[in-house]
Amino acid sequence: MRGIDPEDPKPFAVLHPTTINENVVHAEYAVRGKLYNAAVERAQSGKKVIYTNVGNPHAVGQKPITFFRQVLALITYPEMMNNPAVLASFPPDVVERARLYISKIPGGTGAYQDSRGNEFIRHEIADFLTRRDGYPGSVNELFMTDGASQAIGLCLLLTIRGRFDGILTPIPQYPLYSATIEIRNGTSCGYYLDEANNWGLSIAELSRSVAESRAKGIQPRAIVIINPGNPTGQCLTEENMQEIVRYCKQERLVIFADEVYQTNVYLPSQKFVSFRKVILDMGREAEDVELLSFHTVSKGAVGECGRRGAYVECLNIHPAVKDELYKVMSTNLSSNVDGQIMMGLMVNPPRVGDPSYPLYKEETEGILGSLARRAEMISSAFNKLEGVTSNPVEGALYCYPQIRIPPKAVAAAAEKGYAADVLYCLELLDETGICTVPGSGFGQADGTYHLRTTILPPEEDFEGIIKSFSDFHRKFLRKYEGRAFL
Amino acid sequence: MRGIDPEDPKPFAVLHPTTINENVVHAEYAVRGKLYNAAVERAQSGKKVIYTNVGNPHAVGQKPITFFRQVLALITYPEMMNNPAVLASFPPDVVERARLYISKIPGGTGAYQDSRGNEFIRHEIADFLTRRDGYPGSVNELFMTDGASQAIGLCLLLTIRGRFDGILTPIPQYPLYSATIEIRNGTSCGYYLDEANNWGLSIAELSRSVAESRAKGIQPRAIVIINPGNPTGQCLTEENMQEIVRYCKQERLVIFADEVYQTNVYLPSQKFVSFRKVILDMGREAEDVELLSFHTVSKGAVGECGRRGAYVECLNIHPAVKDELYKVMSTNLSSNVDGQIMMGLMVNPPRVGDPSYPLYKEETEGILGSLARRAEMISSAFNKLEGVTSNPVEGALYCYPQIRIPPKAVAAAAEKGYAADVLYCLELLDETGICTVPGSGFGQADGTYHLRTTILPPEEDFEGIIKSFSDFHRKFLRKYEGRAFL
Repeated sequence: MRGIDPEDPKPFAVLHPTTINENVVHAEYAVRGKLYNAAVERAQSGKKVIYTNVGNPHAVGQKPITFFRQVLALITYPEMMNNPAVLASFPPDVVERARLYISKIPGGTGAYQDSRGNEFIRHEIADFLTRRDGYPGSVNELFMTDGASQAIGLCLLLTIRGRFDGILTPIPQYPLYSATIEIRNGTSCGYYLDEANNWGLSIAELSRSVAESRAKGIQPRAIVIINPGNPTGQCLTEENMQEIVRYCKQERLVIFADEVYQTNVYLPSQKFVSFRKVILDMGREAEDVELLSFHTVSKGAVGECGRRGAYVECLNIHPAVKDELYKVMSTNLSSNVDGQIMMGLMVNPPRVGDPSYPLYKEETEGILGSLARRAEMISSAFNKLEGVTSNPVEGALYCYPQIRIPPKAVAAAAEKGYAADVLYCLELLDETGICTVPGSGFGQADGTYHLRTTILPPEEDFEGIIKSFSDFHRKFLRKYEGRAFL
Repeated sequence: MRGIDPEDPKPFAVLHPTTINENVVHAEYAVRGKLYNAAVERAQSGKKVIYTNVGNPHAVGQKPITFFRQVLALITYPEMMNNPAVLASFPPDVVERARLYISKIPGGTGAYQDSRGNEFIRHEIADFLTRRDGYPGSVNELFMTDGASQAIGLCLLLTIRGRFDGILTPIPQYPLYSATIEIRNGTSCGYYLDEANNWGLSIAELSRSVAESRAKGIQPRAIVIINPGNPTGQCLTEENMQEIVRYCKQERLVIFADEVYQTNVYLPSQKFVSFRKVILDMGREAEDVELLSFHTVSKGAVGECGRRGAYVECLNIHPAVKDELYKVMSTNLSSNVDGQIMMGLMVNPPRVGDPSYPLYKEETEGILGSLARRAEMISSAFNKLEGVTSNPVEGALYCYPQIRIPPKAVAAAAEKGYAADVLYCLELLDETGICTVPGSGFGQADGTYHLRTTILPPEEDFEGIIKSFSDFHRKFLRKYEGRAFL
């Protein structure tokens, strides 16, 4: 029998760390892990923290889109529209849109909607899909959730039956996947993205992972593809996506397409293409390939993370499986209605000729243009540092440079019981207040070290942050390479 | 090998109803089941439906509290406060509160907050708990979620390790519990509430259920108590709660206290007492009894279901288990911020002397007073019908009468392959448009039949609804008892 730890505050608790669901205990989620906790502690002690650990644009100064907030404010308190002075302060298309939603949302924002989301808003999303892909969307394929994380969790819940069901996940990956797969008692089957090849996704590597999993008795059932990539920022080419679809058909893999960064594409030569469009374009060749694609209001120029507005769209999913998804969502009754409305606004924004269009255009282009400049600035800056290399940030909100960490630092970290990139990120935080996430939280090839930083700090602060980062990096190298301080 | 169903639209789908997570397939959730689907179909064909199936107050005409919506509108679009005419249209305490939240919510409502919820708002909740119970609340015990259903799901996720972990759940119960326990792969251990004794909870019956479970090798780890009851509407007495706490200490059961209806108590002789207060009042005798209590903005006079604002408060929970809860919530980043603000407003409403207080008082007392009258009206009306009996609706938002269904109707239902109360509710819907939920969705003693209706339809419609229900009931009895139509 195990002895009782004298430091355990509640050794006899019914819910004890040793007696709760061990899948939860084993799950890891570094985005809010050791570094985040250290940053919060630092902030509480009154020191400055520059949060670049989470893609949370408004928290670091990105402004909401005016039209969206105006409509939402009127819907929140519709009595404002009875006051002529207040009414006159809003553009007419704002008032019109608010009235439209009020007429289409039974019971208003305070009422549960259909568990899949309000039907009118799902129509707006379906129309958006039709315009985006050239193939008609359908309300019956759409399920709205409190954030894309919830949608992903529900789809994994349906897919995973136990340890021998595998989900192919990229390395590096956004750790929501590994954590949720662990919590659902499934197995993550990692496939490496090729850093030397601009974080490319090769079919050979997928085959390797699938074969290795099967050899262990694990059946891969689905593949997670994050496009544009998180933390890697790469955008898949259409040809690559077609190969992937062919492979998924051949190997019977459901595609989980995490397309939440679809508006965050920065290189003028690139254009986001959805897996939905690729599959439908391929016709017979891709027939019946099952797709679950995720989108959100949290990213893009909208950045409304706090709304938790998102959806999953099904393609080629068995009707009875959609019924099961509907049922399981019904136990939660409804996603939050403000999040649903924000999604409706995002996919159906002001159009040319609308009074709010010029400002909407200015705001969204301003945000996306600035993000594109920041994406370029940050990867260039990393590439100028000794021992640091970064692929271009083609999309999403992150830069994921590789950092050569001196052996002395690796040893120092090992002595403290953590990975070398954790040491690097902790010292960076300590020295500069910049809060990043170490690469070990996302996964990386053995012997390589990375960190993830968002590209979100305000553009005017960028030069300062880059300088502060660069100074720290040089100092870190000197410290652990044993050179004298200059 | 099983043959292929020729009617199966996708017999070879990877995600097939026979190859997905069977816990999901087995889970049942009647609140949005057969009856709800029939009602939606009816509504789509242009016929009237009176939705009394879900506690969704705003959907059936309950108005939001003005102060809450005013504050939320200003926070949603703070630029309104720069326009003097708009600013002047809001009471000063609304403006003050909006400015306070804006200063306390980093990044505003568009930003992820701490995964446990915004700290200032958790302070407001802690203060509310201090006032309510006379024992200081703490932000570190509070975790905010997108609706109480999510909080309950997370706590069950932590508690349940597998089939041999049992959760004691009331019969009848709100089916979120049985569905979620099934999805989490645990076992529901039913304990009957005593209908003849005003839906009382007896320790003898708990003991019976615990003993029966243990005899099957199932270890009950927790007990769900819904107080005021859903669907039963009873309020527990303090003495009864003390007995329950003693029993939980003795049998090592964590208490899941579903206290979402704590403001919905209608009899002047009764007062809601929280399990937290009962445990803390009991001192040494209840030392270390682990409590998870749930509250929401969806019920009470607020009724803001569409916000998905809720929290779970921990008492005597192991710190490392709270850390696990925090981690698992972090994978979802943050609950929606509007829901958090609504919770802050609900627990910290206008006070005597504030400009908004008189209207706030009028609105909340108006809603709760009317609900109390409707609670009384509906149970009286049921008790006047032949073969129908209802306990008084002491609290919550539902009436759960027992309905004697003639044997001929039971047989007719069996022939159609469903329970007799489903037949009754379907015919009620067909005849009157009233959408209820059959008792078989909540559980009931063998051979008894019930239905759940909310008490939410507008007071002015009540007489008509009751008449229409009564007419249907008499007709149903005549039809199946074979009497001639009058």
